[in-house]
Amino acid sequence: MKTVFSPKHAGHAGNLELLAGEMLPAFEMPSRAEFIRGRIETVGLGPILAPEPFDLASAGKVHDAGYLNFLPTVWDRWAAEGRGGTALPFAWPTRGLRGDVPPQAVEALHGYYSFDGGAGFVAGTWEAIKSSHDTALTAAALVNGGERAVFALCRPPGHHAGSSFMGGYCYVNNAAVAAQWLRDQGAGRVSILDIDYHHGNGTQQIFYRRGDVQVLNLHADPMVEYPFFLGHADERGEGEGEGFNHNYPMPFGTAWERWSEALEDACARLAAFTPDVVVVSLGVDTFEKDPISKFRLVTEDFPKIGRRIAALGLPTLIVMEGGYAVEEIGVNAVGVLTGFEDA
Amino acid sequence: MKTVFSPKHAGHAGNLELLAGEMLPAFEMPSRAEFIRGRIETVGLGPILAPEPFDLASAGKVHDAGYLNFLPTVWDRWAAEGRGGTALPFAWPTRGLRGDVPPQAVEALHGYYSFDGGAGFVAGTWEAIKSSHDTALTAAALVNGGERAVFALCRPPGHHAGSSFMGGYCYVNNAAVAAQWLRDQGAGRVSILDIDYHHGNGTQQIFYRRGDVQVLNLHADPMVEYPFFLGHADERGEGEGEGFNHNYPMPFGTAWERWSEALEDACARLAAFTPDVVVVSLGVDTFEKDPISKFRLVTEDFPKIGRRIAALGLPTLIVMEGGYAVEEIGVNAVGVLTGFEDA
Ligand SMILES: [Zn+2]
Ligand SMILES: [Zn+2]
Repeated sequence: MKTVFSPKHAGHAGNLELLAGEMLPAFEMPSRAEFIRGRIETVGLGPILAPEPFDLASAGKVHDAGYLNFLPTVWDRWAAEGRGGTALPFAWPTRGLRGDVPPQAVEALHGYYSFDGGAGFVAGTWEAIKSSHDTALTAAALVNGGERAVFALCRPPGHHAGSSFMGGYCYVNNAAVAAQWLRDQGAGRVSILDIDYHHGNGTQQIFYRRGDVQVLNLHADPMVEYPFFLGHADERGEGEGEGFNHNYPMPFGTAWERWSEALEDACARLAAFTPDVVVVSLGVDTFEKDPISKFRLVTEDFPKIGRRIAALGLPTLIVMEGGYAVEEIGVNAVGVLTGFEDA
Repeated sequence: MKTVFSPKHAGHAGNLELLAGEMLPAFEMPSRAEFIRGRIETVGLGPILAPEPFDLASAGKVHDAGYLNFLPTVWDRWAAEGRGGTALPFAWPTRGLRGDVPPQAVEALHGYYSFDGGAGFVAGTWEAIKSSHDTALTAAALVNGGERAVFALCRPPGHHAGSSFMGGYCYVNNAAVAAQWLRDQGAGRVSILDIDYHHGNGTQQIFYRRGDVQVLNLHADPMVEYPFFLGHADERGEGEGEGFNHNYPMPFGTAWERWSEALEDACARLAAFTPDVVVVSLGVDTFEKDPISKFRLVTEDFPKIGRRIAALGLPTLIVMEGGYAVEEIGVNAVGVLTGFEDA
């Protein structure tokens, strides 16, 4: 299996995040991607390719123009005010407040386009976002060109980014942009299977009213787990999207037996949708030792995930999302890939 | 002029706030109230009375039940999870996310009921909130009993608290609850004149669809100043509230000449509404040396504000809101009160 990877992710480093009343070094750090890259080399998964540059045309179909235009400017505008550290917002347009008037101040606009304090910027963040976007699309192009499956080793991740909001370490929704790009190349239907521990709230929100992109999400119950405000079982899509969104919220402590039942059900729904291509949002924060998560998958479970997805028999783009037990992230993420290859 | 004041505010101390990418000691600190209390004694404004306890019946008419029930529980639930420091949320239900399903985790519910990271809890916070609420209602009862004007030295402040959101150092909207209580006692119409530097977004949101409570707000332009997402000039009220909300957003650097023109216009609108009673949300963060604000009112301006409000010739409840240049806050806040008395 080919991997696409850009070293430019490393410029997105040293940023803080807001977590439970404290500013902490973000759990989403450069070593995550490097552990995975190293493991790919160790097991000899296949070639690691650099991304080609892509324009933002497909991104502009899943993200608002104002939002996309803001992202490249955040750090420079923040620094122009004499600020350092991590650019972060401190107020958000929640219910009862206006969502139709973008304010002008950079920290206000950052809040206007966010839902948390987990999408900070440092000097290299935009270049990393763009390289992650290019990584996903380069991998999508390889799948479109006939590859059975390709791994987009994206960093930063994307599945918490919605049409006009960032958050949860995510800025551009790489999986959503790739799905859109594949549609733009002629795929009639695309399924996104999100197996990250956290609900892919951005991906759901982007496609909630569309019938051409099916979204299936396996995740911790948002009543008790971040991102909290989306991901319930009764969210089935609206309008043309009605029936094309499926959530599988699961309780803390979920291990392979229950989790794999949800995967089985999701795969059955996916197959029934008869997509032309599958985009997998791969998070391995379902791992029992993940520092911020509470599921109990073990290292031996991850190859089984890959085998099950391979059994769908469809062209498959695997996009990296979360996973924070940095020492094991390489083994577990690449375990999914080798499991796919072994199928 | 009588003042109502509770020493219980002092239990709300040592809390941090999220501000521009950092967690900092909250600018809203106990010394604010003590400087004002001391100045009242120095100038011999009048007696300082302790608040009587009031139930939350009127509060329950301006705040959602789920929100009001949550406030007394925040610190205990936070501490029960083994956490210390300041209880604060880290994700918010912005547009595209659900506002109809309160999550269960305390930090999630805190975000569900907030719009920023500026309404933290420590052990004494709820008792301070309740004493601030009681302070406003005790002062309102004195006005209702025939006093010309009474000062409610509230801390924490209230005008950023909406029907189901806290933020900006505010939890229960003391001015809104007092206006509601005065309505409940038989006042036909109440005007709230908010002269804090920041837009009283909570007060506006609470009364936006009501015609019995007029809301007038003088403040820094929300395009560039906190709280950012409400307070524009085109917000005039909706439904039965149409025409009863008036915003006066003003640019950074606004000094007395321009500010007093807005006050004059607001007073004319207020008089035309012919309210039975006026509630003033008094912030003195319009002061030129305020550490977080950018207007240029000087100490000599504050008595002029009091004189102008007194000239309305209406029963007046003055509720303390913001003001953060702690050494001068006493002189400026009490300057408004002595100006009122001198009129
Ligand atoms: Zn995750
Ligand atoms: Zn203020």
